[in-house]
Amino acid sequence: MSKISFITSNPDKYCEMKAFFEENSLELGWTRVSLPELQADTLEEVVIHSLSHFDGDGVFVEDAGIFIDSLSGFPGVYSRYVFDTIGNEGILKLMSGVENRSARFEAVVGFKPEGGGDIKLFKGVVKGFVSLSPKGGKGFGYDPIFTPEGFKKTFAEDEHIKSMVSHRKKAAEKLLQYLKRNL
Amino acid sequence: MSKISFITSNPDKYCEMKAFFEENSLELGWTRVSLPELQADTLEEVVIHSLSHFDGDGVFVEDAGIFIDSLSGFPGVYSRYVFDTIGNEGILKLMSGVENRSARFEAVVGFKPEGGGDIKLFKGVVKGFVSLSPKGGKGFGYDPIFTPEGFKKTFAEDEHIKSMVSHRKKAAEKLLQYLKRNL
Repeated sequence: MSKISFITSNPDKYCEMKAFFEENSLELGWTRVSLPELQADTLEEVVIHSLSHFDGDGVFVEDAGIFIDSLSGFPGVYSRYVFDTIGNEGILKLMSGVENRSARFEAVVGFKPEGGGDIKLFKGVVKGFVSLSPKGGKGFGYDPIFTPEGFKKTFAEDEHIKSMVSHRKKAAEKLLQYLKRNL
Repeated sequence: MSKISFITSNPDKYCEMKAFFEENSLELGWTRVSLPELQADTLEEVVIHSLSHFDGDGVFVEDAGIFIDSLSGFPGVYSRYVFDTIGNEGILKLMSGVENRSARFEAVVGFKPEGGGDIKLFKGVVKGFVSLSPKGGKGFGYDPIFTPEGFKKTFAEDEHIKSMVSHRKKAAEKLLQYLKRNL
């Protein structure tokens, strides 16, 4: 199998994904470019649109977001923009006094098979809660304010929890299973 | 001049724009479809991308947003999504205790000239402030929480103020001047 490459401009995402590949004794290339992202309701649409702007195959993109139930799914597919503007501080302000703190991280991987063929989509979801305050210095983005179901620490407090149950891990595992079956 | 048509799925926007055209004794057609919108930093990019997905000419699209200084420009190009999720209530919660309440509405019109040619862009901006509470029942979207500079009422309290100084009005005026010169 020739080397699969991850298209992302985000070094943190590349490093996380590379670790999942290495656990499976696979190499992962890095195509460090930024593809256009559509304003859409779902990560799937964003991913398909982005990949349609890339010539070549044997590559994948990933898009992720945090969907907060009591905020009608906000920030959802716009998680990166919202993080860059109002940040975790803004999210916690919006959630102040809100009892229902349930949220989920979603990640969708879109893969363009070598030699052509339809784009394959792999989704990972992890349910959890928005914490009352930011905790922990690991991870990135919303990790300090997200506590996964069944745990008491945020993703940023314990990177082992994140590497076990994260949305990106789950999407990556589905991609890896597919790659092992098909290549 | 054959009739120009406004591509929008939003009846409120169409009605506002139609009124501007009628003040200039011009008819305005309505192409009621929803075009794809790009995730981008500027309204200009969104508008150009949307128009590129429409066959035919003599049409324009418009995109607008409210940019709040103390929130790093949030919600900006994602104003519609943010309105549909956290709404004015969410914006006011984010702004609670914030002294600098300055903000601006921006509107960008992109016009595809009849017979082809480059897309023309027309921008309108109105500066103002985020009010402390929602006021007024007119207009739509963020109008109840936006007070333009030099006035004491929100856009939703006085539609005459809005029809005089709004971002959409300013962008529309530039489009109308262009149409009169060129068609």
